[in-house]
Amino acid sequence: MREPIAVLVLGTGQMGSGIARLVLRKRGLRLAGAYCRRQRRAGTDLGIAIGVEKTLGLPLDHDLSHLLTTTRPDIAIQATCSRAEEAWGEIEQLLIRGVNVISIAEEMAYPCYAAPALAERMDKLARSHGVAVLGTGVNPGFILDLLVILLSGACADIRRIQARRVNDLSPYGPSVLASQGVGLSPEAFAAGVADGTVAGHIGFPESLHLIADSLGWAIQRIEQQRKPIISRTSRLTPFISIKPGQVAGCHHTAVAYVDGEAVIRLDHPQQVLPGSEGVITGDFIEIHGTPDIHLAGTPEIPGGEATAALAVNMIPRVLNASPGLHNMADLPVPGALLGDARMLLNDRKRDGHD
Amino acid sequence: MREPIAVLVLGTGQMGSGIARLVLRKRGLRLAGAYCRRQRRAGTDLGIAIGVEKTLGLPLDHDLSHLLTTTRPDIAIQATCSRAEEAWGEIEQLLIRGVNVISIAEEMAYPCYAAPALAERMDKLARSHGVAVLGTGVNPGFILDLLVILLSGACADIRRIQARRVNDLSPYGPSVLASQGVGLSPEAFAAGVADGTVAGHIGFPESLHLIADSLGWAIQRIEQQRKPIISRTSRLTPFISIKPGQVAGCHHTAVAYVDGEAVIRLDHPQQVLPGSEGVITGDFIEIHGTPDIHLAGTPEIPGGEATAALAVNMIPRVLNASPGLHNMADLPVPGALLGDARMLLNDRKRDGHD
Repeated sequence: MREPIAVLVLGTGQMGSGIARLVLRKRGLRLAGAYCRRQRRAGTDLGIAIGVEKTLGLPLDHDLSHLLTTTRPDIAIQATCSRAEEAWGEIEQLLIRGVNVISIAEEMAYPCYAAPALAERMDKLARSHGVAVLGTGVNPGFILDLLVILLSGACADIRRIQARRVNDLSPYGPSVLASQGVGLSPEAFAAGVADGTVAGHIGFPESLHLIADSLGWAIQRIEQQRKPIISRTSRLTPFISIKPGQVAGCHHTAVAYVDGEAVIRLDHPQQVLPGSEGVITGDFIEIHGTPDIHLAGTPEIPGGEATAALAVNMIPRVLNASPGLHNMADLPVPGALLGDARMLLNDRKRDGHD
Repeated sequence: MREPIAVLVLGTGQMGSGIARLVLRKRGLRLAGAYCRRQRRAGTDLGIAIGVEKTLGLPLDHDLSHLLTTTRPDIAIQATCSRAEEAWGEIEQLLIRGVNVISIAEEMAYPCYAAPALAERMDKLARSHGVAVLGTGVNPGFILDLLVILLSGACADIRRIQARRVNDLSPYGPSVLASQGVGLSPEAFAAGVADGTVAGHIGFPESLHLIADSLGWAIQRIEQQRKPIISRTSRLTPFISIKPGQVAGCHHTAVAYVDGEAVIRLDHPQQVLPGSEGVITGDFIEIHGTPDIHLAGTPEIPGGEATAALAVNMIPRVLNASPGLHNMADLPVPGALLGDARMLLNDRKRDGHD
């Protein structure tokens, strides 16, 4: 059998650390090293950095080029940012060195929306170096798009689609809470939406385009709304304390129009401790068509865990993919990696790597 | 743009007719003709045969070779049988003539279980003629396998999987009801299970292997059970009348063992009029792992409609696929075909066909 698949992790925040810990546990994968954006973290042992309570003999490296030379990875998982423009610099270096890339940057789920010229360059560069690039994550990339697309496959016709994800922000730290406007007054929330500091969910246009492309719908326009979820109760998490009248979260919705009709509605109210006001969290998909399809799960599939799992589980699918830029809807479905990852590599690629 | 995709339908029973009607309605597809297994139906106009209440100028043909010469289809959808061995004769002719194939024969969802040697021949023949073969359908092929695999992609680890589909057999005719033992006495049901006439659901080993292969589990053995669902009430459908004490359906289960543990349990109780005893139909998936995932929809996704939709919706995915034998887990997810099917063909293949 070939050598274990060498995996580089970019980013050692909460997501990058979770991904690295998962890589360590999977048969057929080898954690080759990790890149850190912050120079002051360089040199820290990777094991300590990701909280596995033992040293791994792999220092965090702030110099990606040096790290690529020393580790020679087969694939890299990028967990450093949300925007495609910001992801590009690192991805470009990886592709030029012939490294396959999985990014959890939200815009990378469908980069030709936010950065069409970049997406084209990325695709060409990946092809010319014989490697594949994929953006994935729980959302965009899975619940409000891939799952919807899959279920639509059982339909002869569709009039409209509604997908709703109601989740709890309590596990998240200050930067996520700030981007959702949690703890603000309603007035400060409105100002934050206006100046872009309250972003809400990143990834709605990406999910809408993933769905529309797969189904053959041409989107005319997308409308997004960010409304404050104003608390009637006191809510306390390890990261924030909210008083009645303050903002507990952001109810972000996005609607795609095709032929003048609102055909896809995505609905994603995110708040801390929704249960304190009796709100039930979960994932809810409704397809109105022939036949109607309703599928729901409660509580919601936990976002952080699912994103880390998807990034790692997609490794064999990306190594098997044709060179170029991919999305979750043009590769085979993800599946949990429970055996040796090398056994899932197809022969052609396995030969190529040996 | 290229010519519409020419689609041949094999079989004009309930499923074949539904598929042909759907092909007629889809932009970018052209219904090229239909093959009938029963000689006495040959010559009937296809429009009349499939119930669209107008003639199409396409006579049903009992001679597949002749039909292929006159229609020159790009792809054929086979709806003539359930078993891979029985499907082979027609598939062989199609492949040799360079026609891509989608089959709804249950065993074709994963033919290397029931007919491994045949599956290998099929794969080789398809490759040598540059075309792709796929088995699909609601089950196996979608709910109890593909959907499970997709959801597992959000998991870091899985201890066990349970998927349950509770459905209503009332829309089905005498041959389906007989294969489920509906209307029999409990004693006759037991005898039917013993001699194979009460088959229950066809496709459990296929679903189990689709899941296990995708996740990297090696199945040691599969155990199946078929138990009668004995009615306590009188039940009447257009096709059958059942008295209390008679069999209303078959509760068929299958369990896959890996390393001595029962890791996948599929559960498919099928009966006529389950509501008459308060049974709620639906699709229910439980993955016990990290994280746990529960997803459910009720009532069940209707099987006949979904199978016809999947067969047609997969057309562009199969035309885009590499030559050879495929299954639903190694192609991109299905999606409803709502635009022109030709727009979903990738460039390489589109060029190849022009």
